[in-house]
Amino acid sequence: MQLLKKKILKEGRKQEGNILKVDSFLNHQIDVALLNEIGKEFKRRFQDKNVTKILTIEASGIAIAVITAQYFNVPVVFAKKTESKNLDIEVYEGSVYSYTKAQHYKIRISKKYISSEDNILIIDDFLAHGQAILGLKEIIDASNATLAGVGIVIEKGFQNGGSLLREAGIDIESLAIIDSLEEDEIIFRNN
Amino acid sequence: MQLLKKKILKEGRKQEGNILKVDSFLNHQIDVALLNEIGKEFKRRFQDKNVTKILTIEASGIAIAVITAQYFNVPVVFAKKTESKNLDIEVYEGSVYSYTKAQHYKIRISKKYISSEDNILIIDDFLAHGQAILGLKEIIDASNATLAGVGIVIEKGFQNGGSLLREAGIDIESLAIIDSLEEDEIIFRNN
Repeated sequence: MQLLKKKILKEGRKQEGNILKVDSFLNHQIDVALLNEIGKEFKRRFQDKNVTKILTIEASGIAIAVITAQYFNVPVVFAKKTESKNLDIEVYEGSVYSYTKAQHYKIRISKKYISSEDNILIIDDFLAHGQAILGLKEIIDASNATLAGVGIVIEKGFQNGGSLLREAGIDIESLAIIDSLEEDEIIFRNN
Repeated sequence: MQLLKKKILKEGRKQEGNILKVDSFLNHQIDVALLNEIGKEFKRRFQDKNVTKILTIEASGIAIAVITAQYFNVPVVFAKKTESKNLDIEVYEGSVYSYTKAQHYKIRISKKYISSEDNILIIDDFLAHGQAILGLKEIIDASNATLAGVGIVIEKGFQNGGSLLREAGIDIESLAIIDSLEEDEIIFRNN
């Protein structure tokens, strides 16, 4: 997606440890007009999938998921990372390993809001090692829902999440795939 | 806002401790069509305020803030509750006391994304004791930005946040104010 790649080149900042900061438009300050174009692009790529629900994880996936959901006319459900009094007792749980924090954490979705009838599109901001997606897939599998596909804004193509998930047969669409952050410039894959 | 009150009466569930669960449409599963009506209503109520930015706190404020931002054509910035490698070192901090968790926590916004030129609308899902709003106001004051107003989806009118903030001269618009959750039914204030 050219508009997104241009924005990343213009405003993305590389930091040590293969970190790409996009907090001026994606996960701290949010450029809502850009998110609308991202939502339309996800709709174009998954329009034949008969999506009934969009799933994401709090917090940075929520903005992208709700804007995208407008083009699918479906509800969003976001998995919670923390125990909450507002969460039902009956939940599906997934386990996510965070490489940045070097620890596992649980994600939870109330059993009320996902069913075997659902055809689910997962939306998230980044794909690196794929652990968040695997945690959500654990929840989808437990509920007997169907995983229709995964829409990612920025994939770190030099980490193994993308190939891991594609080899598992999951339909992943990443709007920008970065093959290298290590040189002077950000290098995108032609996709 | 009648549509919202009807939805609360239909799907809201009361729980012990004055908790109103609205996780079927507002803060776990998200009814995006309803959020669009909420966004339009905030625009109607704050249309004369020359809003330049919408502020909220992760996680449950984000969905409402970004949908609402479409009607104002402004960016959203959400305050972060956790320390993050993705956050800048230069941040404004606010302190929030959580009554449910009985502890203080910090919220942070990068200094890059809020300036003295900004005229800020705060958006959040609930107003109870008003502590989250006060934490955001601390950040706005530190940045010398202007607080244009506060848009709340559901105000717990039987708790003191609303009167506390109104007495401080803040322009608060709550789309549904609940005066009592204790009887058999949910009682709304006529506003």
